Amino acid sequence: MSELCIFDSVHLKNFASVVGKTESEGPLASCFDMCEKDEYFGKSTWEEAESEMVHRCINILFTKEKMHPKELDIICGGDLLNQCVASSFGVKEWGVPYLGLYGACSTFGEAVLVGGALVSGGFKKNALGFACSHFCSAEKQYRFPLEYGGQRTPTAQNTVTGCGAVLLEKGQGDIMVKDGLVGRIVDAGITDVNNMGAAMAKAAADTIRRYFAFSGKRPEDFDVIATGDLGREGYELCCELLGDSLDGLRDKYTDCGMMIFDMEGQDVHSGGSGCGCSASVTAGYFLPRIKNGEINRMLLIPTGALMNPTTVFQGQSICGIAHAVCFERG
Amino acid sequence: MSELCIFDSVHLKNFASVVGKTESEGPLASCFDMCEKDEYFGKSTWEEAESEMVHRCINILFTKEKMHPKELDIICGGDLLNQCVASSFGVKEWGVPYLGLYGACSTFGEAVLVGGALVSGGFKKNALGFACSHFCSAEKQYRFPLEYGGQRTPTAQNTVTGCGAVLLEKGQGDIMVKDGLVGRIVDAGITDVNNMGAAMAKAAADTIRRYFAFSGKRPEDFDVIATGDLGREGYELCCELLGDSLDGLRDKYTDCGMMIFDMEGQDVHSGGSGCGCSASVTAGYFLPRIKNGEINRMLLIPTGALMNPTTVFQGQSICGIAHAVCFERG
Repeated sequence: MSELCIFDSVHLKNFASVVGKTESEGPLASCFDMCEKDEYFGKSTWEEAESEMVHRCINILFTKEKMHPKELDIICGGDLLNQCVASSFGVKEWGVPYLGLYGACSTFGEAVLVGGALVSGGFKKNALGFACSHFCSAEKQYRFPLEYGGQRTPTAQNTVTGCGAVLLEKGQGDIMVKDGLVGRIVDAGITDVNNMGAAMAKAAADTIRRYFAFSGKRPEDFDVIATGDLGREGYELCCELLGDSLDGLRDKYTDCGMMIFDMEGQDVHSGGSGCGCSASVTAGYFLPRIKNGEINRMLLIPTGALMNPTTVFQGQSICGIAHAVCFERG
Repeated sequence: MSELCIFDSVHLKNFASVVGKTESEGPLASCFDMCEKDEYFGKSTWEEAESEMVHRCINILFTKEKMHPKELDIICGGDLLNQCVASSFGVKEWGVPYLGLYGACSTFGEAVLVGGALVSGGFKKNALGFACSHFCSAEKQYRFPLEYGGQRTPTAQNTVTGCGAVLLEKGQGDIMVKDGLVGRIVDAGITDVNNMGAAMAKAAADTIRRYFAFSGKRPEDFDVIATGDLGREGYELCCELLGDSLDGLRDKYTDCGMMIFDMEGQDVHSGGSGCGCSASVTAGYFLPRIKNGEINRMLLIPTGALMNPTTVFQGQSICGIAHAVCFERG
C-alpha cells in the first residue's frame, strides 16, 4: 500500500475565494471573487466577521455552480478560532453533513484530502472543502488584541483575512486532484509565537521530501510547488532544510504567504499566514491557472503550526504539520 | 448514492481505554485498561496530563496488538483543548501521519468515520481513531479554574477524564464497522454553558432520525443504541424530541454519560460529558461485549456541543452535532 492517498477520478469542479482589506490591497487582489474592505464584514464582532466570510465564500461557490446547498453531500473544513467556531457558524444554515477539521494553517490541505477520499472511495458524490482565517480574530486569540497596539517582530507573519472553498466531484474535469500525502507532526523545538514560519518549516520539508520519495515524481515534473504560509522566514528555512536533496526544487518553489502580500510595500513582515492563506491563494490564483492550462501540475503543501497559547506559556514548543496535494490539468 | 457511509469489510481489530480518578470510582471502573488515580498523570499541568493520557492509551493499544507504531498508517483524532493540543502532543512522538479532527464531544464518531472511510476506500491499510478529554483542563478552559471552586448547576455535566482508541483494519473480524452517518450542525438556540445536554439533544435526535430513515433499519434491529454524552438532561430531551417516531427506541437507548458514573452516588449532576466519554465507554465497555457476542449490533451516536466561550459571551448560541456509527458482531 502506498503512503500516498491516490484518488480515482476526483476533480475540482468549482472554487471560490473571499479576502479582506489588506489582501485586497495586495498583488493578487484581482484574483479573488470578493474583496471586502470592511474588516467586520458588516457584523459587530471579529468572530462573526469570520463566520460571515465563510458563509459568503461558500455562497459564491453555490452561485457560480448554480447549485442548491441540498445538492451538496458533505462539507469538510475548519479555521483557527477555538473550537473552529467560525466554520460551524458559517456553515450551519445549510444543514449539510459536516466534518470539522483542525490542522491549524494546514487545514485546507486536510479538507481536500478528506473530501477527496470520501469522493474517490464512493462514499459521497461530492464534497466541499474549505478553510478560513481572519487577521483580527486571530491576533486577538493568539497574541494581543489589536487595540493594544503591540509591536511585531520581523519574523512575525500577518494572518490572512481570507477564505477559499473548493467543490470536489467524481469524474473527469479541468482540474484533477491526483493524489496527496497526510503529514506527520514535527516538533522543531520552536517556542516563539512570533516565528510560526520556523515552527512549520521542518514539517513542510518533511512532507515535501516524503511526497517525492513515495510518488517517484521529481520537482521538474511540476510547474509550481507551493507551501501554504511559511512566509519569507519559513521559506528560506525550508529551502535550507531540503538543501540539494531535490534538484530543481528552488526554481519551482514558492509560498502562498509570500504571494498574497507585497512583501516590500505592505507592512506584513515575514508575509501571510493563517489557513485562509493557502486556501484563498489556491482558489483565487492557482486553480484558475490550472483550469486555463497555464499551470499543468502543481504540488500544494499547506503548512500548520499547532500553536496553543496556554502550552506556549507553559514552555512547550509549537509543533508543525504539513499536508501535500497534487493538482493536475485534466 | 446513500446518505450513509457504508464500509466495505472494515473491522475494529483492537481497542484501548484509559480513565481518571472519578471514572475509576464509577460503575464501569473494571472495564478500562487503565485507571489512573493521579489526575496529573505524573505531569505538572492539566494540559500535559491530558497528552500523557492519550499517549498511554495508544501505547496500550500498541502493546495489546503487539504492534510497532511504524506499522500504523494513520491516526485520526482530537480533543476539547484549544487547537486540539492534547492530541498533537500525545501522538507526536510516533511520527505517524495525522489528521486532526474537531467535532467537540462527537470527535470519536468522526474519527471512526474518517478512519473507516480511509481503510474501506483502500487509502490506508489501517487507521487509529481516538478521542480524549480531561475534567480539569476542560473546566479551566471552558468554565472556571478548579481553584475558583464555582458551584455547578443541576444540568451541568462532569467532563470525563478519559481516552478511548480503536484500530481499524480491512478484513473480517469480531467487530465490524458496518456503516455510519455524518451529522449536521443543529442550532437549538441554547446559550447556557452549563446545559450542554440540551445543546446536543436536538442534534442527536436529528442524526438518530436520519440514520434510521436512510438505513431502513429499526431500533429493534439493535441491541444497544447509545448517545455519547447527553447526560440525564439531554437524554430525556432527546427521547422527548424523538417522541413515538421510533418504536421500541427507548428499550434499547442509553447514554454513555449516564453509564460511566454512578448518577446517584457520585456528585456528577447530569452525568458525564467530553469526547473521552463515548470513546472510553465504547472502547472499555461496549466493544468487549460485541467481541464476546453479548451485543450483536449497536448504534453509537457521539454527540458534540460546538461551544466557544468567547462567542457565548457575545450572546451566540451553542450549536450541536452528532455522528452515528454502527458496530456489528462479525
